[in-house]
Amino acid sequence: TVCGNGYDVHRFAPGTKVWLCGVPIAHDQGLEGHSDADVALHALTDAVLGTIGAGDIGAHFPPSDPQWRGASSDRFLAHAAGLVDGLGARIVHVDVTLICERPKIGPHRPAMRARIGEILGLPMDRVSVKATTTEGLGFTGRGEGIAAQATASVWLPG
Amino acid sequence: TVCGNGYDVHRFAPGTKVWLCGVPIAHDQGLEGHSDADVALHALTDAVLGTIGAGDIGAHFPPSDPQWRGASSDRFLAHAAGLVDGLGARIVHVDVTLICERPKIGPHRPAMRARIGEILGLPMDRVSVKATTTEGLGFTGRGEGIAAQATASVWLPG
Amino acid sequence: TVCGNGYDVHRFAPGTKVWLCGVPIAHDQGLEGHSDADVALHALTDAVLGTIGAGDIGAHFPPSDPQWRGASSDRFLAHAAGLVDGLGARIVHVDVTLICERPKIGPHRPAMRARIGEILGLPMDRVSVKATTTEGLGFTGRGEGIAAQATASVWLPG
Ligand SMILES: [Mg+2]
Ligand SMILES: [Mg+2]
Ligand SMILES: [Mg+2]
Repeated sequence: TVCGNGYDVHRFAPGTKVWLCGVPIAHDQGLEGHSDADVALHALTDAVLGTIGAGDIGAHFPPSDPQWRGASSDRFLAHAAGLVDGLGARIVHVDVTLICERPKIGPHRPAMRARIGEILGLPMDRVSVKATTTEGLGFTGRGEGIAAQATASVWLPG
Repeated sequence: TVCGNGYDVHRFAPGTKVWLCGVPIAHDQGLEGHSDADVALHALTDAVLGTIGAGDIGAHFPPSDPQWRGASSDRFLAHAAGLVDGLGARIVHVDVTLICERPKIGPHRPAMRARIGEILGLPMDRVSVKATTTEGLGFTGRGEGIAAQATASVWLPG
Repeated sequence: TVCGNGYDVHRFAPGTKVWLCGVPIAHDQGLEGHSDADVALHALTDAVLGTIGAGDIGAHFPPSDPQWRGASSDRFLAHAAGLVDGLGARIVHVDVTLICERPKIGPHRPAMRARIGEILGLPMDRVSVKATTTEGLGFTGRGEGIAAQATASVWLPG
């Protein structure tokens, strides 16, 4: 197996919910972005693309392209997974870390893992979602936005 | 094998030493946190938990729980390793990167690798500890705190 | 296989180009550092070193050592790869993520992947280069510098 990594950041903006790991979470702010701004699925999509050297999410879904405005990010992740499948490769495990002071991630972890597992066709024990804060430091600590990092483990044929 | 990732940050506070990778290091500041604030072991614990989809360190050891006040973080890592063992899985390699301007990590690397190897039952050549600065940029560059990232490679049965 | 991680940051300074992934890119600024400041190759070198517990780039090539002033970072990466070879191990995949607002990475991706593949003796489909922005947040968002993170997947004998 090989390991890909992903990282993404989105900025808070006025709103009433954030999408994280394909799950809508009621919040006193939203996240800014052309798609649904699901920073976790974006980082994970990049991690999956990284395992097969298939560029990054911006190459496949340019933010400047109006067709992705408000798009649900699960299609980005599903697209990356399809590219893996097309090579006869197989995603065996994914791990996402959300970096923010708020919202609380723990209560949503089961729904998030289930949703990612559903998109990728992975059992829930092969899908990990974690969260951490930066203890008030940096842009996540100041509540300016949310960062996410991800790893994907993919078995490659040959 | 599958790869889990971890990230953590702790803030500097008045003190005379920091705990990093299970090793006390004399320093002109300490790190703030409910446990011993060992940011490296926290990131590594999360990486290990991530390989088996077992939540995150905050779920197992809530900072709000008074029993973890001042706790030695090696027990957090040992707990995560025990969960891996309990599944018949096996940690095969871990890699930690400390991100800070100070203290200097290099002189403590051998002790840190030995200590992590001891906690995890891994030979030292399967334990990596690295460090980097952010060249004066961001919260680590301003000396406000220390960040750590980790990966864990775990062989899963079945 | 085991997975190593790397992270590095370099600060913008007056200049006319930046080196990223072993490729010179015309830019209205340069990156500060004792070597060519190729933040991507530095992160990748650390990821490779991490797989074999061989310390970090700073231990092998101290920035305080005048012989590395202006050095081309490909020799740092080649050195790490040589250490892997010397153990009878084998790099099977690498993935680099550049974190910056500018310059645009996409147009240079093919050259970057080819250059890294050349240094490591890897086919291009085992070399991934990705990029992301932090949406104006943090030191990368303010255009103060470039960060890079990398993973390396290495098959270890025995
Ligand atoms: Mg995004
Ligand atoms: Mg912590
Ligand atoms: Mg560097």
